[in-house]
Amino acid sequence: MAKYTDVKINKLVDYVTNVFKELNVDEQSARIVADVLVEADRRGVESHGVARLKRYVDGIKNGVMIPDAKPVIEKETPVSIVANGQGGLGQIITYDITKKCIEKARKNFICFAVIRNSNHYGIAGYYPLMALKEGMIGISMTNTFPLVVPTFGKNALIGTNPIAVGVPAGKHPDFLLDMATSTVPRGKLEVYARKGKNIPKVWATDEHGTPTDDPQKVLDNLKERKGGGLLPLGGGEELTGGHKGYGLGMIVEIFTGIFAGGSFGPFVYGKKGQPADVSHFIGIINPEAFIGVDGIREGMDKIQGTMKDSEKAEGKDRIYIAGEKEYELSVKHEHTVPIQDKVYQVMQEIGKELNIPFDIE
Amino acid sequence: MAKYTDVKINKLVDYVTNVFKELNVDEQSARIVADVLVEADRRGVESHGVARLKRYVDGIKNGVMIPDAKPVIEKETPVSIVANGQGGLGQIITYDITKKCIEKARKNFICFAVIRNSNHYGIAGYYPLMALKEGMIGISMTNTFPLVVPTFGKNALIGTNPIAVGVPAGKHPDFLLDMATSTVPRGKLEVYARKGKNIPKVWATDEHGTPTDDPQKVLDNLKERKGGGLLPLGGGEELTGGHKGYGLGMIVEIFTGIFAGGSFGPFVYGKKGQPADVSHFIGIINPEAFIGVDGIREGMDKIQGTMKDSEKAEGKDRIYIAGEKEYELSVKHEHTVPIQDKVYQVMQEIGKELNIPFDIE
Repeated sequence: MAKYTDVKINKLVDYVTNVFKELNVDEQSARIVADVLVEADRRGVESHGVARLKRYVDGIKNGVMIPDAKPVIEKETPVSIVANGQGGLGQIITYDITKKCIEKARKNFICFAVIRNSNHYGIAGYYPLMALKEGMIGISMTNTFPLVVPTFGKNALIGTNPIAVGVPAGKHPDFLLDMATSTVPRGKLEVYARKGKNIPKVWATDEHGTPTDDPQKVLDNLKERKGGGLLPLGGGEELTGGHKGYGLGMIVEIFTGIFAGGSFGPFVYGKKGQPADVSHFIGIINPEAFIGVDGIREGMDKIQGTMKDSEKAEGKDRIYIAGEKEYELSVKHEHTVPIQDKVYQVMQEIGKELNIPFDIE
Repeated sequence: MAKYTDVKINKLVDYVTNVFKELNVDEQSARIVADVLVEADRRGVESHGVARLKRYVDGIKNGVMIPDAKPVIEKETPVSIVANGQGGLGQIITYDITKKCIEKARKNFICFAVIRNSNHYGIAGYYPLMALKEGMIGISMTNTFPLVVPTFGKNALIGTNPIAVGVPAGKHPDFLLDMATSTVPRGKLEVYARKGKNIPKVWATDEHGTPTDDPQKVLDNLKERKGGGLLPLGGGEELTGGHKGYGLGMIVEIFTGIFAGGSFGPFVYGKKGQPADVSHFIGIINPEAFIGVDGIREGMDKIQGTMKDSEKAEGKDRIYIAGEKEYELSVKHEHTVPIQDKVYQVMQEIGKELNIPFDIE
């Protein structure tokens, strides 16, 4: 079992901010990236938290991420934005565009934005959370490194492509669905491989494109691009609905890369040493476009209550609402958050290398 | 094996139109409902085609559907509509609102509409198809009779809640994803039950809320509301991603019933002999909000080509794009469509009862 150390959130944010500043990201932008990463840890999504810091540091060093990029808006209507991230960090441009979209939606009821030529933007749910703070409905999608095979295909051609949707509630926590469109992310296979456990046969395929229970084989094949990869939500067969997960993954490629005029599928992260050309989609809807925020909050409380108070399946004691587990963790981690010792050490080493004082406890 | 008879599409549409006219639906509206039903048969979605005619006839007779309802728009902005179907047939109000939304999106780039107090609206994909004819992007969702259990829940509280998304392509057929958010629809269990076949354990749960392979038991339990029901896409466990399908089903309940101020989940079709209070969502996006229709068509051709031309998994010879199979069938069925003999007979009986000449061959 991995060991954890509790660290102070404000100190952790400051430290991560300092790392990015040292790498030529301006202070305000560095703080945004730090906040997105730490928010993932607060919500229990460790795979997208400060555990990624090393990859970001490397990304900046090897030219995949431009630390001082100057993103531009290339097209704008009262209800839409097309932006070019200019190879910068995904969090910075997406935070900025989400803010602008919220203002547009406040005035004009809806705003959809697409961003091309960007990079990893952290947890997809961060941007709907920004909308929820303003009483708005928020949608966020991004394409990613290609890891998922299309139904009946052999090669990983589609990203794990998350979809996140946030809707404001009243007494209940806000609804926040944040899901990869693959059955599981790659990190889940790594966990099973480390434990020497077999995986369910709806998670991944081998080099022949056949569903497999061997996680290490899948990880090795993906590394060497030998064929096979993660399976879409629903698994590898139409019988189990795999074509639906594949369709959802395609929707994300289309709403991001295609609508923004960026790269898609296998062409994302396609050129070594150059920006990854990741694309994002942000949608903000003002509840006043529909029955209004009070009616929606009331309806959301009712539907959440109806689900949660209903009879449980045998052996189960609780029905969850999307985002509920993560919300409870974020409340628990108001001031401190547990960081895995290996991640802690890597952060410490980054500090040594960059000559930044490391004090996060 | 069921037997089929080829019938003429124009005659079939005329006949179904006459049935609805006889039941007090005005001619223009009757023709819309007929077209939506027959389009499902043309595309091979028999479960949503004229096989439903009897249910519609009964629905009108027993007060669930109001044949001469006068739907009203209750709220409108430049980019949104909230409508009340007044208990009428879902196709009529949704066709009308989709037309209005396309006009709004032409002028103002985006239009989202929600409709409450409606009924079954046919195949969800029909309305994105209307958008595609105008070179627009179309989204459609509806809640339905509750048949799906929430993850870890015992009772069917959520509809099969389809999501349909259409995006215009160039040389390739337009992309059209049209998927229930359950792993399979109820009709699939009926097919397996008739054949005495077991179902995969990601399709449904028994009266204890435990995944089962016995389709007849599930159908009986659903009929008697004894517990259990269809499983969301991804099955009954978080391990296989069932919570994601559950989340998607909730998204549809929220974007339809909650945003429109209508019923949701277990309350849809909740009052016998009264309108079902089904809700729909329609979204139209003008490609000019993003990189424009030419760029999108070009991108769609590229992504479709990339998927289809890629290596196939062992034992598979073709990779499909969402909507491709249905498109090919619709081309094949330009003038005639095969109708199952049992459905043919039921239609004939309806004609006898209503005194309408039956001639569709």
